[in-house]
Amino acid sequence: MPTQLELVMNLMIRIFHQYSCKEGDRFKLDKGELKMLLQRELAIFLSCAKKTPQLVDTIMQDLDANKDNEVDFNEFVVMVAALTVAL
Amino acid sequence: MPTQLELVMNLMIRIFHQYSCKEGDRFKLDKGELKMLLQRELAIFLSCAKKTPQLVDTIMQDLDANKDNEVDFNEFVVMVAALTVAL
Repeated sequence: MPTQLELVMNLMIRIFHQYSCKEGDRFKLDKGELKMLLQRELAIFLSCAKKTPQLVDTIMQDLDANKDNEVDFNEFVVMVAALTVAL
Repeated sequence: MPTQLELVMNLMIRIFHQYSCKEGDRFKLDKGELKMLLQRELAIFLSCAKKTPQLVDTIMQDLDANKDNEVDFNEFVVMVAALTVAL
């Protein structure tokens, strides 16, 4: 039986792979996969994206520390951390 | 009904407050609270701590970016992110 913290860690891995495996590199989110993840997993994203259509581009640029136009698991976890603090 | 990602974010907040409110500043983890959180929430911590008794001190120093000897929510989320990538 996992603890709550272990559940959090397992869920982060599961959410990431659910979207990263859709196309291209199975271990990275491209822009389309990131957009789908945010739209489906974060209700507040949809209302913010209506006001700021470039939101996915901005998030992608902010996250993509190594500038390969994809978001790896490390970069994704940084996003979840930042969103949790910000929301 | 929250999504999986919203569940992750809610759980991180709930886990943090469950331990941070035990003593002193209700919104920060002191060393005792951090140790209790790691012992109860992370099974692997116990086996690592047996080999490295100073582990809590090391984690505390690494996390405590603003050097106030306490771990705030931002610093906690950084730890969860780092542990998820490392484990």
